[in-house]
Order: sequence, then C-alpha cells, then structure tokens
Amino acid sequence: MRTVGILGGMGPEATILLMQKVMAAVPARDDADHVPLIVHQNSQVPSRIAALIEGTGPDPGPVLAGMARDLAAAGADALAMPCNTAHHYAPAIRAATDLTFLDMVDLTAAALSAAGARRVGLLASPATRLARVFDAPFGAHGLEPVILPDDAALLELIRAVKSGEPSTRLAPRLAVEADALIEAGADHLLVACTELSLVRNALPERVPSTDSLDVLTEAIVSFSRG
Amino acid sequence: MRTVGILGGMGPEATILLMQKVMAAVPARDDADHVPLIVHQNSQVPSRIAALIEGTGPDPGPVLAGMARDLAAAGADALAMPCNTAHHYAPAIRAATDLTFLDMVDLTAAALSAAGARRVGLLASPATRLARVFDAPFGAHGLEPVILPDDAALLELIRAVKSGEPSTRLAPRLAVEADALIEAGADHLLVACTELSLVRNALPERVPSTDSLDVLTEAIVSFSRG
Repeated sequence: MRTVGILGGMGPEATILLMQKVMAAVPARDDADHVPLIVHQNSQVPSRIAALIEGTGPDPGPVLAGMARDLAAAGADALAMPCNTAHHYAPAIRAATDLTFLDMVDLTAAALSAAGARRVGLLASPATRLARVFDAPFGAHGLEPVILPDDAALLELIRAVKSGEPSTRLAPRLAVEADALIEAGADHLLVACTELSLVRNALPERVPSTDSLDVLTEAIVSFSRG
Repeated sequence: MRTVGILGGMGPEATILLMQKVMAAVPARDDADHVPLIVHQNSQVPSRIAALIEGTGPDPGPVLAGMARDLAAAGADALAMPCNTAHHYAPAIRAATDLTFLDMVDLTAAALSAAGARRVGLLASPATRLARVFDAPFGAHGLEPVILPDDAALLELIRAVKSGEPSTRLAPRLAVEADALIEAGADHLLVACTELSLVRNALPERVPSTDSLDVLTEAIVSFSRG
C-alpha cells in the first residue's frame, strides 16, 4: 500500500474526520489492513479567511509548499489536502514536489458530473467563493454553481465549528442555508468546506448531496491500494 | 509552538484518539491555537503481538527507527508514540535521531507515583507484560505491578478493538478484568494499552485510575507550548 501525505490542520478537527473516514472506508481485521498516512497537522498555516476575504496577514502559499516538501521528505507517495479554500494555493503545492496531488476540487467536480448534477448549491466559505476555487473545475464539467446572495451566515457557522461549538447546535443552521440554496434552484448540494462536513448530518434529503471530503477519502483509499 | 512527531498506527484509531485528546487539552478559539503535530499513521509496523508473544514475523524495531527518521526529516521537534507495547523498542527509536523522545512509559510511572499509587493493576496487552515494558520504570518509582494470572481475556479484547467491534459492547468486558485486579490487591488501575483507552468508559470507580494516553497527551501539550 502506498502512503498518502495529508496537508492538514485547516482545521485540525476536519483533518481528524478525514482520517476517520479513510479508516471506515477500509474493511479491516487488523492494523495492517489500514491505509498508511502521514498527516501534517499544522495549526500554523496563516488564515485563508484573512488572506482571501480580508486581504490581510501572511500568504498561506509558501507555508503549504513547505508542508508538501516536509511530507515528501517523510516518505509520502502522493499528497492530499482536506480544505477546499486552501485549494486556491494548489499551484504552489504542485510546484513544491514531484508527487501526485489528489486535487479534492477537481475530483469533486468530476464526481458531481458523474452523479448527474447540473445546478450545484455551494455550502462553502465565502473565501472559497471569492477565490473562485470551483469556477474552473465546474466550468470544465458543465456545472453551474448556485450561491446565496449573502453567505455571511455560512462564515459564522464555519467560525463556530473552529471554536469548538457542539455540532448538534450547528447542524440545523446549516440546514437553513441548504434550504435557501434549493429554493434558489440547486438540484444538488455540495458540502465544500471541511468544517461544514463536521455538521452535515441535518441536510435536507429532497435533493442529493455530495461532500467533497468523501470524494477525497475515496481517492486516497484508491490511490493507496490501487 | 513546537511540533511533536507521532509514531502512530498502532492502532490507527488509538492514534486518532490521541490527536483528539491533544485538541481537547487546548483551549482554542481558532485553528492557530492548536498544537502542531506530524502524525506517521503507519499501518505497516510489524505486529508487536506476533513478535513478542508468538516470536514470529519481522522485527518492528527497524521500522519504528525509520519512522522516527521520517518525522525528523519532516521537521518534528520531539517524538511520541501512543502504543505502550511498542515502548519495548524505545532504545531503537532514541538511537535513530537526536530528538527528545517523550517516553509514555516513564512519564506514566512518574505520574502514578505522584498520584500516590502503590500497587498498580495493569490493564495491558500480554505483550507489554512479556516484554517487561513497565518493570524498570515501576521499579524506579517504588511501584508494584498487579497482573492477572490469565490475561488471555485482555488480548481478546485488544484484538476485538482492532477489528472494529463497537466500544459499547467491549467496555463491560474491560470492567470485569479491572474488578479482578482490584480483588487481587490493586489500589490504582492503569490503562496501559491505547486500544483499551478506546473502551475505558466503564471502569469501576472505587479505586483511582490513570490512562497512559492521558499522561502522554499532557506531555505533548506541555512540550509544544512550554
């Protein structure tokens, strides 16, 4: 099995959720059946929200490139990053090493297209929207993004997850945003922020939904075992 | 904050539990408040149970030494390992790099002594007992180990955790072993297997108990922030 290096810590709880999903995706009788990972749980990546929304603070790109090099030095065979917004810096990560980058955003657009989605309601950070992270991959697959005119509530929700508020209290607030996206014409919901993956259990079921973290999980398991 | 490298994957779920404990031990308002870790979630460490109980299979020592070097190459400032049995190989790990090794077994003996324990009931793998992992540190602190004449049930329990059986079904089985240790004279219980940390919620409360994984968590947080 090949080892996947994880650019993590954005946030740390979402990184742990990815590790749990990778474990759950493998039928295991003993330790050795699991997918090997090297996880850079780096809490010190400069804030993507500050850099992309507020235009302040240091550039996360060089730190992410350094993490990619660290993971290569430790023996990773490929790289993956459980943070949608940080995919804005994917070019810097790709340039830092020769390793394959399992691009969550590209993989998600392909998965949505395969699932028959057309108008995709984006449950994402405003930073992801402002950085146009999904624009090119959606375009390449003929997908149309549906976004809310005001996504301040989503940012508040993401900050509440990062500060440790219990998910039982937060999940209903995500459901309200999801309903508004369906009203606005979404035929498919996309959980495109790994902090929101932590509170996705109350999503409405009258349209299908995809979590980009699940798409990345599948890609990691398939790369490692394939 | 300094970065701690984790020799993990023994088992992977116990490694995730350590990461969760490290997160919970830090009051955090945002990602940046958390302790940075680099986690070598290596499922391919040769079985410690096979090597130490059955005397078969490859030696885990060189693989663990290699993981220590990987973590140093990735930028770790210290090393820690959430597996009591694997501390049998601590000398190989210490010899592999110049980094401080936060030794869970030594730290646990010191914590037990500080807590006033004298006769310590060991909830551990038979491999930990056979490898005499706790003998020297207990001796140095005047602690007397209490073990069960037959610890096959503990080994079964550890294997059940590794194979993914739900903890609600397993915790009562750990409580039976704990009761037997108290009957045998233990004045303090020690959860000295990180797989058992996952099912410790049903321990009897008529004597105090310590989980070596909690002791390691404290040492990691204190090294990183201190």
